[in-house]
Amino acid sequence: MRLVSFRHADAAKIGAIVDGGIVDLSGRTSSRWPSLRDAIAAKALPALAAAAKGAKADLSFDEVELSPAIPNPDKILCIGLNYASHVGEVGRALPTVPSVFSRLHNTLVPHGGSIVRPRASIDFDFEGELAVVIGERCRHVPRASALSVVAGYTCFLDGSVRDFQKHSVTAGKNFPATGPLGPWLVTSDVITDPQRLELTTRLNGSVVQHDTTDHMIFDVATIIEYLSTVTWLEPGDIIATGTPDGVGLGRKPPLWMKAGDKVEVEISGIGVLGVNVVDE
Amino acid sequence: MRLVSFRHADAAKIGAIVDGGIVDLSGRTSSRWPSLRDAIAAKALPALAAAAKGAKADLSFDEVELSPAIPNPDKILCIGLNYASHVGEVGRALPTVPSVFSRLHNTLVPHGGSIVRPRASIDFDFEGELAVVIGERCRHVPRASALSVVAGYTCFLDGSVRDFQKHSVTAGKNFPATGPLGPWLVTSDVITDPQRLELTTRLNGSVVQHDTTDHMIFDVATIIEYLSTVTWLEPGDIIATGTPDGVGLGRKPPLWMKAGDKVEVEISGIGVLGVNVVDE
Repeated sequence: MRLVSFRHADAAKIGAIVDGGIVDLSGRTSSRWPSLRDAIAAKALPALAAAAKGAKADLSFDEVELSPAIPNPDKILCIGLNYASHVGEVGRALPTVPSVFSRLHNTLVPHGGSIVRPRASIDFDFEGELAVVIGERCRHVPRASALSVVAGYTCFLDGSVRDFQKHSVTAGKNFPATGPLGPWLVTSDVITDPQRLELTTRLNGSVVQHDTTDHMIFDVATIIEYLSTVTWLEPGDIIATGTPDGVGLGRKPPLWMKAGDKVEVEISGIGVLGVNVVDE
Repeated sequence: MRLVSFRHADAAKIGAIVDGGIVDLSGRTSSRWPSLRDAIAAKALPALAAAAKGAKADLSFDEVELSPAIPNPDKILCIGLNYASHVGEVGRALPTVPSVFSRLHNTLVPHGGSIVRPRASIDFDFEGELAVVIGERCRHVPRASALSVVAGYTCFLDGSVRDFQKHSVTAGKNFPATGPLGPWLVTSDVITDPQRLELTTRLNGSVVQHDTTDHMIFDVATIIEYLSTVTWLEPGDIIATGTPDGVGLGRKPPLWMKAGDKVEVEISGIGVLGVNVVDE
């Protein structure tokens, strides 16, 4: 099932993607869950699937304003340096444990939205990534059962301000509206193995990153084990799993995003997350 | 004015500290602001001061459960390596720009509460710090006017898990219940110069850190200018301004916090933030 967060008629809603558009699940389920995060927390994804089964689209994509796949996560944890090819291109040592940073929720952007190149820098780089959405509150999850706490997967663009990232990872990764998440959540009953996906990033239609998720240094299960050692994971939490090589920083000369550019992150079995770039 | 967040009779409340206890401002102001963060956002601190003026205590400290000074901040941004004495003891280079990391809200602990040494590590260190509470939504704030966006100040203990901090700053600084914040907010009309405060950290009654805030490498105004270049600051946001020397990591052998310990952070003009240590 593909679940989407969107706004329609001034209300935040949950929908399912079907041929031709969106089934408005908020209407069909008495709006019991104000957001997809709440529905996940209530373990209501089977109820949403039942409500969507056989339904025809209520709304076309043109009629709604998409939101980030999870618009209001409790936390957004990101793994840096998780593909050897990327670690090499940025001249860092291979990590022996996952390297974590976090993003503020005001960095999120929906599919079809605009990412913002800040006034403070032109070193604005793309990083296409697979994002994991957590399905339940959990801590100390063993690797062997870690995929059971996943609600689903989506695409993420980890827009990075490289000169500020030299100051601190947190600074470079937390400019507002630099983290598109979407277009929708594909539930984990559909994607049973997150290490068998193909990831492509395109800048203005040209492929700039292309890799498969089996090349992650730390796979999704290992990342969940590690992060849940540190903190509680909550329903709707986002985990970005790192980017392969091809980023703008690794090129000579560097290739930065600028106003007017179109950026897409496509993951097999999920779809295409597309945004454009504007200046602050 | 000293403003406190607390719980009483199963409700979250705002109070003012007076001789003998707490004036329940939620009762006196028709509960218009569900939290101190909301009151700050509504620019209601003058209204709270008026309501508290001349009032006698409604509640003693024994009758309430204190909350972190701001229990629900939008964000908690922290500056690492901001006193030369501390930079030296941990063997790092002097920074030329502020080094930022962020904390999750589930790390917050109230005065009188317990901080949790995690199951994953015994390398549990103390860092006493001055915390700034932001008073208004702002971005691109020039240094010269930066103190005007401050609602007030409080004490912070930046409990740090040093072996995980080697993996990534974010991991070491984000174990749950490792960040006491309080005991209360002292408004910026009382503390007009945050660089003239005396900071003392005590472990089981012994002074382990003692410095003055004029020794910060980046003063509060510079920190606000930098952070507001990166992101929007919101009412109630917390900025932790770094720790002076004396931390457990800098000692031979290292001095770690353990279950049963009592830790206090005292700042002149604010008060004493005290917690005890328990094991996860």
